[in-house]
Amino acid sequence: MQKTTSEKVSKTAPAKNAGVERFLAVRTRTEALAAPLSAEDMCVQSMPDVSPTKWHLAHTTWFFETFILQNFDPDYKVFDETYNYLFNSYYEAVGERHPRDRRGMITRPPVAEVINYRNYVTNAVAGLVEREQNPEVMRLLELGCHHEQQHQELLLTDIKHVLYQNPLKPAYSNSPADPPVSAPKINWQSLEAGIYEIGCPGESFSFDCEGPRHKVYLEHFEIADRPVTGGEYLEFIKDNGYRNHDLWLADGWTLLGETNQTCPLYWEQGDNGWEAFTMRGMVPLNLGEPVGHLNYYEAEAFARWAGARLPTEAEHEVMAVNQGIFEPGMVWEWTASAYLPYPGFKPASGAVGEYNGKFMSGQMVLRGGSGATPKDHWRPTYRNFFYPSSQWQFSGLRLAK
Amino acid sequence: MQKTTSEKVSKTAPAKNAGVERFLAVRTRTEALAAPLSAEDMCVQSMPDVSPTKWHLAHTTWFFETFILQNFDPDYKVFDETYNYLFNSYYEAVGERHPRDRRGMITRPPVAEVINYRNYVTNAVAGLVEREQNPEVMRLLELGCHHEQQHQELLLTDIKHVLYQNPLKPAYSNSPADPPVSAPKINWQSLEAGIYEIGCPGESFSFDCEGPRHKVYLEHFEIADRPVTGGEYLEFIKDNGYRNHDLWLADGWTLLGETNQTCPLYWEQGDNGWEAFTMRGMVPLNLGEPVGHLNYYEAEAFARWAGARLPTEAEHEVMAVNQGIFEPGMVWEWTASAYLPYPGFKPASGAVGEYNGKFMSGQMVLRGGSGATPKDHWRPTYRNFFYPSSQWQFSGLRLAK
Amino acid sequence: MQKTTSEKVSKTAPAKNAGVERFLAVRTRTEALAAPLSAEDMCVQSMPDVSPTKWHLAHTTWFFETFILQNFDPDYKVFDETYNYLFNSYYEAVGERHPRDRRGMITRPPVAEVINYRNYVTNAVAGLVEREQNPEVMRLLELGCHHEQQHQELLLTDIKHVLYQNPLKPAYSNSPADPPVSAPKINWQSLEAGIYEIGCPGESFSFDCEGPRHKVYLEHFEIADRPVTGGEYLEFIKDNGYRNHDLWLADGWTLLGETNQTCPLYWEQGDNGWEAFTMRGMVPLNLGEPVGHLNYYEAEAFARWAGARLPTEAEHEVMAVNQGIFEPGMVWEWTASAYLPYPGFKPASGAVGEYNGKFMSGQMVLRGGSGATPKDHWRPTYRNFFYPSSQWQFSGLRLAK
Amino acid sequence: MQKTTSEKVSKTAPAKNAGVERFLAVRTRTEALAAPLSAEDMCVQSMPDVSPTKWHLAHTTWFFETFILQNFDPDYKVFDETYNYLFNSYYEAVGERHPRDRRGMITRPPVAEVINYRNYVTNAVAGLVEREQNPEVMRLLELGCHHEQQHQELLLTDIKHVLYQNPLKPAYSNSPADPPVSAPKINWQSLEAGIYEIGCPGESFSFDCEGPRHKVYLEHFEIADRPVTGGEYLEFIKDNGYRNHDLWLADGWTLLGETNQTCPLYWEQGDNGWEAFTMRGMVPLNLGEPVGHLNYYEAEAFARWAGARLPTEAEHEVMAVNQGIFEPGMVWEWTASAYLPYPGFKPASGAVGEYNGKFMSGQMVLRGGSGATPKDHWRPTYRNFFYPSSQWQFSGLRLAK
Repeated sequence: MQKTTSEKVSKTAPAKNAGVERFLAVRTRTEALAAPLSAEDMCVQSMPDVSPTKWHLAHTTWFFETFILQNFDPDYKVFDETYNYLFNSYYEAVGERHPRDRRGMITRPPVAEVINYRNYVTNAVAGLVEREQNPEVMRLLELGCHHEQQHQELLLTDIKHVLYQNPLKPAYSNSPADPPVSAPKINWQSLEAGIYEIGCPGESFSFDCEGPRHKVYLEHFEIADRPVTGGEYLEFIKDNGYRNHDLWLADGWTLLGETNQTCPLYWEQGDNGWEAFTMRGMVPLNLGEPVGHLNYYEAEAFARWAGARLPTEAEHEVMAVNQGIFEPGMVWEWTASAYLPYPGFKPASGAVGEYNGKFMSGQMVLRGGSGATPKDHWRPTYRNFFYPSSQWQFSGLRLAK
Repeated sequence: MQKTTSEKVSKTAPAKNAGVERFLAVRTRTEALAAPLSAEDMCVQSMPDVSPTKWHLAHTTWFFETFILQNFDPDYKVFDETYNYLFNSYYEAVGERHPRDRRGMITRPPVAEVINYRNYVTNAVAGLVEREQNPEVMRLLELGCHHEQQHQELLLTDIKHVLYQNPLKPAYSNSPADPPVSAPKINWQSLEAGIYEIGCPGESFSFDCEGPRHKVYLEHFEIADRPVTGGEYLEFIKDNGYRNHDLWLADGWTLLGETNQTCPLYWEQGDNGWEAFTMRGMVPLNLGEPVGHLNYYEAEAFARWAGARLPTEAEHEVMAVNQGIFEPGMVWEWTASAYLPYPGFKPASGAVGEYNGKFMSGQMVLRGGSGATPKDHWRPTYRNFFYPSSQWQFSGLRLAK
Repeated sequence: MQKTTSEKVSKTAPAKNAGVERFLAVRTRTEALAAPLSAEDMCVQSMPDVSPTKWHLAHTTWFFETFILQNFDPDYKVFDETYNYLFNSYYEAVGERHPRDRRGMITRPPVAEVINYRNYVTNAVAGLVEREQNPEVMRLLELGCHHEQQHQELLLTDIKHVLYQNPLKPAYSNSPADPPVSAPKINWQSLEAGIYEIGCPGESFSFDCEGPRHKVYLEHFEIADRPVTGGEYLEFIKDNGYRNHDLWLADGWTLLGETNQTCPLYWEQGDNGWEAFTMRGMVPLNLGEPVGHLNYYEAEAFARWAGARLPTEAEHEVMAVNQGIFEPGMVWEWTASAYLPYPGFKPASGAVGEYNGKFMSGQMVLRGGSGATPKDHWRPTYRNFFYPSSQWQFSGLRLAK
Repeated sequence: MQKTTSEKVSKTAPAKNAGVERFLAVRTRTEALAAPLSAEDMCVQSMPDVSPTKWHLAHTTWFFETFILQNFDPDYKVFDETYNYLFNSYYEAVGERHPRDRRGMITRPPVAEVINYRNYVTNAVAGLVEREQNPEVMRLLELGCHHEQQHQELLLTDIKHVLYQNPLKPAYSNSPADPPVSAPKINWQSLEAGIYEIGCPGESFSFDCEGPRHKVYLEHFEIADRPVTGGEYLEFIKDNGYRNHDLWLADGWTLLGETNQTCPLYWEQGDNGWEAFTMRGMVPLNLGEPVGHLNYYEAEAFARWAGARLPTEAEHEVMAVNQGIFEPGMVWEWTASAYLPYPGFKPASGAVGEYNGKFMSGQMVLRGGSGATPKDHWRPTYRNFFYPSSQWQFSGLRLAK
């Protein structure tokens, strides 16, 4: 997700103390995620889509400084005037910014200084919030926490890509790999045709693109009760799936011709069979785990090969709510829906909302959430979105028919 | 439209004689469209999206030869074995094909020989159809006519682009330019919320992507009774529309940065004011005519600037049927809908249907039809589709809210 | 050669009648070279380095119109004002010009009109020269003839490349292919070390880059008495020459990695052995003929593989003069010399001389001349030059040691 | 210079102790050059031509490990088997290697581990050399020292480019900038025409491309006694030098059109006049210092503007020896000579010599040496070489006529 950040105004502002506690917990967790990394790991940008860890650490801090401290704390002294240029992302109203694809050039400030920046801003925000009961600040605080949680997932996704570029294939974590698992048989869940409602009901925090809540007419459909596994995807490969043009969208087939890709990103055929690069380094492919790092074309081709299709985002959401799924799943799942505005969508105004809906072209919606998605960040109406060619996310699929 | 060709089986095959007559009329019209052009005009490819006129002449002929004559006429002798390679487009099941972006390299066969090919195949098809009452042939004949009519519009779109590359800006036609017109004030047509049906009802010819007919839930909306004019678009330009990032989708803003575009394709600021390249050469901008040659980003940005939005394809179709619009309009109109399969869509099988749905990623739907669209080719369920960045079509917009 | 055109002032202007006769002969030959081609053949540009035949026909005419008629004939009426933009090449002082890589977009004026242009200018020049005895005109006439002869060779080189893009591999000429020949054993010619003179002696026409005549010190060397043949080059291929990085310059090895090239341009391995595309279409490889269409890296790698090296341009010139070689050979031969100014080189002034020496970076000198080089255009001091990666010329090599 | 490393066998191997002392001094100096940098500074690659500091630290160490320790110390235990892949540069005979343009992805091993690697290899080499009197080892030791000294200059050149990408424009060194200086008037030194000898006389260390020593014939010439200054170059800019196509080689003019460059790399026009990025950060332009960071086209255009030319490498060398210049100058000076083999040049054999002469295409010779060139590394026969478009070196020019 390209980090939309403007929120829908929640009806009830959270209690002040809880807000500060959550804020501090989110800040601490980001730093914990960066802890296993060296200064060099945190500085490098492996492709334009990837941001360095240091940039994530600083940008999420810049967000609180810019939208809360500079607007609501008259005594606040900016940590470093240059950071607005360095660590702004796409908020054009807030000024010029460093080009996205040059983020890896920022060797200075060093990580240690960025940690100082984090502490300085964290303390200032906590102090401000404890002094005042400003509901707008509390809403921005919640927004900032969700924004930072988005970047927590991106931080993990991005550092995985960075480490994979290294021929040594270093592990992010030294904890043991998951034991081999086997997946249960798919059970198909069905739903009758009719009018359903989807989108954010508006009682708690959500991003603006999740609303307005609105009616959709759905035909009868069936949807699998779990994502597709690596083992199932391997059957597709063995059945010559990457070489059979009947299975592929034209854009996907063209892309295959350019990349010569024959398996998902991070999969490699080793001397002892298939392996995958994980946060724990290269490990034998775990056949029972959900397949990830697919692009949309791969997901769509697999579904066609399996005699099924991808669900729409409405089908996915209705079924998740019906089945009481209120926390993220194992992988983000590509849906058959393009990322477009819901009927009646109106972007919020002002700098925070500047880019509401700016990304609503050319991207597809993913639903479900991944193991890298913070649990208290996710809700069933959550719309993640990426370009069809993107592979570096924890992105798989679930079948429908 | 990237030429999908597989059809939905129509319930009633057309009468034989009418079919042949229509076939001959379609064939003749294509040749009439090419008549003003020299052999050189017909050979050149000005960008990968554009096909040379000669290629259109031959490819539409190859379609009849391959899918009708070779399958249903045991006595048919192929005109030239090499043409299957040269003039196939994307039907991979029918064999290897010449790369799309190298179509302009085919200086031979010369145009005169392609005309011989056309006559040879036209006669053979007419003879076959007059000899036999095979309903499958009749259906393929109708499909082939619609396929050729699609290419008639593309032929005009493409040759306009070719001629514009020439510094002399030669005219396709020497007939006088349209007189200046002024557009009436927009009237807003509204529709109540509720369930509506869209898609091909299946009683006459349609492409497979137009079905199945299905229910959609629409909120209350209003839609303009005419497309946006060149004069209205000029106001957008004068209001600094191309320089105001608040109005643009992120992908569109990035593209502007790369192209430095400041007006629609074919518009130029001359010494005596704005001019546009038309089939009649460079002429003063006709302010009352619909604006065309916009890409999706331009259409979407204009709508935002105007305080409105683009209609969805469902809104467009329901309103067209409600208002009794059963022939093409003045320009294709970008809708807010991505080109995706309707619920329950199943591609036809076999070579003709090979690429059903292959183009269903990354493109947006256009509705309405243009002055270059043959009237007996169009229906209100017609789904045209192009990439958001495409500009060389007769593509404008209609406002909704 | 990228068409330098400015000349060194020859001491003796040629007799008037002879000049006109030569002029008319050159003009006629260009038209004869274009005669086998269709209008479509003459319009297409197969890569940025290639110019369409029609462009060659017009540009050589523009040269006489611009530098002779417009400067020396007060009554001359320009044929078409737009042609100065369309058919200028790199003479920036003469005004803006059409981009080189868009020459294939000029479908109009049609070939027939370009032929009218040629006749109009040919007659006007002949009339002017017959009326007047202006030595400057005579010198420009000779320069223009040599300029046009350069383009005669380029016309052939370029049309070969155009026709090869066509999957039908059409022949330029229907005359029978050369019979298989076998090459004699190489005899090595040697020369003692010492001071030699090279460069244009200045008594007859030459391009300015051929002078000044100057001294060079040469070590003892030996040089082969004939170019390398296709059969010899085939041995290099069979010995894995394209896969052995020890043989290649670093830039050449990088290029091989990008192109996956495994043989010279125009060679193909058919069912019945090696074939080559020639002006007579695809024919069996003629083992005894000189190998052509090599880039510099291929020539240099072959020489290393053969335990030899490329000669310098000074060695080549001294030996050609010593052996009395005063007409072009079978292929242009890559030398070990970069195309750089001779000591004391001074570009001529004015528009004709504008680009004297502009091409003196990044290119290598070729010597020897090819079968496509007009005999009365060539001299032993002739310096042809192309980028090391260029392959579409008739370019081979001769060994030295 | 793209690091050729194979040497010409020197007649007299240096004394053992002096060799070790020099080796230790070279190793220590490299580490001192890296001392001001953070781990992040040392990891980043700002463009494909640039190598990270960490890579320089490791690659120069790998050279000693691979060519000395692994070949001559039977007890030597390789520090880490993966380093041969990571830190090899272009020695294809020594195995696969990490792609040059991905060197910035190597976040691990961290700098600290690379320093361990350096110490381990430095101690092992010193121990080996002290134990044994092997003349081949002593020759490789000297070669390795010169190789490392080349990389010392590249390390400085590269880190300057890295730091400049950072919008903060951080300084490499905090020492004060040089005071403004004014340059003396140019004195022209002349030399009579005749035969001269250039190239390495072979009595002490040199790279193989510096030989064989050979005769050249030089015309009378004059050469300036100092390089062109920043102030003189500024006059060229003010005289519209970057906009006057008459001054530029065609390739240089094309490059200008692509880059929109209007001054040398690292120059910027600030509010208070011209500034330049130096190792001490952005400082006011020092008008009397030699201009640097020119590409060949800029140097050549300046010389033409000044009514002069670039000297050839032979002229430069003869004059340097005549004038007793035996240490590097202030900037590398582009010469008019392409980097090509001297007559009789034979590459050394084996892995060290693998790439002798591999870079002899497309590059121009620079002479003179820069302030970043170690004094005991340079000699008057030294041939540096870069592509004409390269700007990130300390590269200026000296006039000749």
